[in-house]
Amino acid sequence: MKFTCTQENFNKALSNVSHIAGRSVTLPILNNILLEVKDGLINLSSTNLEIGIKTQLRGKIEKEGSFTVQAKLLADYINLLPKEKISLELKDQTVYIECQKHETYIKGLESSDFPVIPEVNKDKKVKLKSIDLKKALNQVMFSVTLDESRPEISGIFFSISNNKLLLVGTDSYRLAEKSIALTDSSGEEHKIIVPLRTLQELNRILSETNQEEIIIYINDSQIMFVLEDEVELVSRLIEGQYPDYKQIIPTESKTQTKVKVEELSRIIKSVSLFCKPGVNDVKLNLLEEKNELIVSAANSGIGENTVTLSTEISGIDNEVVFNYRYFLDGLSNLGEDEVVLELVNDNSPGVMKADKNGNYLYIVMPIKQ
Amino acid sequence: MKFTCTQENFNKALSNVSHIAGRSVTLPILNNILLEVKDGLINLSSTNLEIGIKTQLRGKIEKEGSFTVQAKLLADYINLLPKEKISLELKDQTVYIECQKHETYIKGLESSDFPVIPEVNKDKKVKLKSIDLKKALNQVMFSVTLDESRPEISGIFFSISNNKLLLVGTDSYRLAEKSIALTDSSGEEHKIIVPLRTLQELNRILSETNQEEIIIYINDSQIMFVLEDEVELVSRLIEGQYPDYKQIIPTESKTQTKVKVEELSRIIKSVSLFCKPGVNDVKLNLLEEKNELIVSAANSGIGENTVTLSTEISGIDNEVVFNYRYFLDGLSNLGEDEVVLELVNDNSPGVMKADKNGNYLYIVMPIKQ
Repeated sequence: MKFTCTQENFNKALSNVSHIAGRSVTLPILNNILLEVKDGLINLSSTNLEIGIKTQLRGKIEKEGSFTVQAKLLADYINLLPKEKISLELKDQTVYIECQKHETYIKGLESSDFPVIPEVNKDKKVKLKSIDLKKALNQVMFSVTLDESRPEISGIFFSISNNKLLLVGTDSYRLAEKSIALTDSSGEEHKIIVPLRTLQELNRILSETNQEEIIIYINDSQIMFVLEDEVELVSRLIEGQYPDYKQIIPTESKTQTKVKVEELSRIIKSVSLFCKPGVNDVKLNLLEEKNELIVSAANSGIGENTVTLSTEISGIDNEVVFNYRYFLDGLSNLGEDEVVLELVNDNSPGVMKADKNGNYLYIVMPIKQ
Repeated sequence: MKFTCTQENFNKALSNVSHIAGRSVTLPILNNILLEVKDGLINLSSTNLEIGIKTQLRGKIEKEGSFTVQAKLLADYINLLPKEKISLELKDQTVYIECQKHETYIKGLESSDFPVIPEVNKDKKVKLKSIDLKKALNQVMFSVTLDESRPEISGIFFSISNNKLLLVGTDSYRLAEKSIALTDSSGEEHKIIVPLRTLQELNRILSETNQEEIIIYINDSQIMFVLEDEVELVSRLIEGQYPDYKQIIPTESKTQTKVKVEELSRIIKSVSLFCKPGVNDVKLNLLEEKNELIVSAANSGIGENTVTLSTEISGIDNEVVFNYRYFLDGLSNLGEDEVVLELVNDNSPGVMKADKNGNYLYIVMPIKQ
């Protein structure tokens, strides 16, 4: 194996694939990146057995071959080289890298031991804008549970139908739902659960891409995300049935108001200093006649705090207690300047909607008093 | 006690004093800030028994009195209030704060239990530029030991004489020495050791000050730093004798070179990826005839790396091994674009000097091969 490329291209390619490679002691090859030169292509791959990432490196091939070296070491090293031409050659089970007056020998492992990243059937595909998917992931991922004892909600529910992709995340205390338009679809319906870790990795790759569109291929147990000419990410899907979450979204609301997200966030933060630790309880009183939203908290050891916000309230008076952390999470991921708040009673979830469009919904369970 | 002030002034004053207040369970009053209104002044103070900080808050006094409340809670709360007028009143052992439509009651403790912050005799003073002291602290603090079993080097040595302040820090593996000019002095000589924690706190305050000059008062066991109209910081001094560090600074050098700090830092970082973990050994070869500085490291498990840098070498050929972390620390705190490196042999400390002026010195012990 022998090729030359620029430091910039090598660095970008490594940044795409190197992150999921681990520091496994039991299976050291999973810490490595597979470098593979064949059929006129330089491929870089990594896998943690659940996710596989593959990218192509543009460069000049002098000799075919393949080998694996530590992902973190190679990525850190290439990143620190000057922005010049790099030549890489496999010599006696050692990768020799030269760049200006930098000379390095890196030991590695045979490529034959590297796990095969599964192929995904490319029959059924959907396409959407990278920027839409990135925004949607940020609006939903934060609400996914980190509790691994409930695998069916440890990922994001993808529901594809009618040229729309619906993403849902929950940890049973709050839930986020986002809908985005597809730019192309084979028309098939899908209901799948994608692991959070996969989407975190995808989100990282999306924040660095120049590709406007992303293609998704779905099989029974695998999903593949493709940014053309850049990167392919394959992941297993989570087995099981996603909860019937639609039933917990209130179908009516008794009290409505619209407030500025920044102002309400600041108020919730200041009031939350006086909540009961561990309970994180902040009370919202919506008074229709006075047109006041009163936010308060009290803690017998510290003191109490009450803030009155003038805002138009429609419907009946209402009083609900929320965990301020979940409430703030919703506000900060709304992506809009104003939030529409809808309440039913102190026993039903509160609903937050972005003002401008109906494609994002966040609901948060109340704390019973 | 009753006064009004602006949110901005209150916030700034709290930011000066609140940081050293702790979360002590055994002595809860140390978590509090003392609010004290008397003789036409609003004073805020905090202490951790080793350091005491006092600041004045500009505002309109309506009633004298004093009380203490949790420092972190008060600082966090005031920081989240709108930039409007704040009124604060003591009512029945509770501080009542009002700001627009924010109303808060904060419980606290009697001011009579608050520790007295010692007064420092103001006979002997020195003055210097705040910006000089701040830069000097950043160039020396990082080299101070965090090992509390050696109290005499757990602070910075201040040596004042001839209208100069010399600051020295070491952890016995490396040492930094910086000299700054005083703008005023009573002429007394002082040799004292100031705790690192005190100087970290002072450094934080210096980064927010508008005062051009700082005044230092020194007593037998106390030091006070004063930024006029802003803040007074009193600290105990460390007892004991600072080591006679001058004897380890090489008096001659056999090999000299001058290199760009940024380039050498990048090279050291890239080579360090191949050092032996825990040893952190990076080898420097200076070849006079070839005018080359060769940096290398090797680790039998990973591989090896060699970088050759063309630079003018004067003196004899030399080869020394350093801990790359200590070496990089020196480079990054030099504050100049170029560094002068001076070596004696593989058994003597290496010396780094800023190119432009002779008032900063960093020495690092070699690793014996």
